[in-house]
Amino acid sequence: MSEKPKNVLQTVTPEVVAEAKGIIRDADHAAIAVLEPGTGQPLVSRVGLATLADGSPLIIVSGLTAHAKALTADPRCSLLIGEAGKGEPLAHPRISLICRAEALAAEQREEARARYLAMHPKAAIYVDLPDFRFLRLVIERASFNGGFGRAYEMTGAELVGP
Amino acid sequence: MSEKPKNVLQTVTPEVVAEAKGIIRDADHAAIAVLEPGTGQPLVSRVGLATLADGSPLIIVSGLTAHAKALTADPRCSLLIGEAGKGEPLAHPRISLICRAEALAAEQREEARARYLAMHPKAAIYVDLPDFRFLRLVIERASFNGGFGRAYEMTGAELVGP
Repeated sequence: MSEKPKNVLQTVTPEVVAEAKGIIRDADHAAIAVLEPGTGQPLVSRVGLATLADGSPLIIVSGLTAHAKALTADPRCSLLIGEAGKGEPLAHPRISLICRAEALAAEQREEARARYLAMHPKAAIYVDLPDFRFLRLVIERASFNGGFGRAYEMTGAELVGP
Repeated sequence: MSEKPKNVLQTVTPEVVAEAKGIIRDADHAAIAVLEPGTGQPLVSRVGLATLADGSPLIIVSGLTAHAKALTADPRCSLLIGEAGKGEPLAHPRISLICRAEALAAEQREEARARYLAMHPKAAIYVDLPDFRFLRLVIERASFNGGFGRAYEMTGAELVGP
């Protein structure tokens, strides 16, 4: 019940955008859905998360993992961000992002590395291994569910930037 | 880093199967990935969860939601189950299921309704609305990640049944 039909969508205000951006910036993990190469089957798994300065989600992947191989074959993916917390799991805010995974430009790597390690200090043991690479997830659109009766759709442009 | 290549997979023991089944049975929510009709884009969102007596995941969907429409068009889906908890998010056990959504047989509905309400008492306000229906998610295969260095692959037959 996370995506709502148009007729139950609420109006997106600056406060709602700020709330959605905060959920993304504060999260240290997400569920990532990718397309399995060959079958096109959706696959969802957990990834560690950070953000770039513009708010774009940032992940690091080992080339050996199923989701890394999938994103190489087809960069389309989706992230679910926001914890269920205690009590009724659907009462807690969460956001579903529709994204496209992109390799980082060489000049972005130092920023990405520093931001990722600030969120995940223990990742220091693997961030520089040759098999690992950072991916920026370009947000194309999003569905934000702030809890019962609070459903919004947003563009990537609303969520990324200062 | 949730799916591991074959060469780092561990041997599946009865204890590991029991641990994986326990995670599924105890969960009251999951991330569900589906394929967006028309685009084939993966979409992930949060759903409430219960299980049938055989351990199959059970969800209830409103026909108005994006994931319900997607599952009607293509029943292939994936569930991520298991909370990240405190500390390092990738240290906590979770399981990724590859599933196919099926309508319940009429004679299964009472069991499903009772089991869903036992896990989600507040769902009583909508389970019987005409727009809502239960779906059984038939597990085809699974990747269980018990934390760093503990990666297993399982079949649906290993996870479902007494």
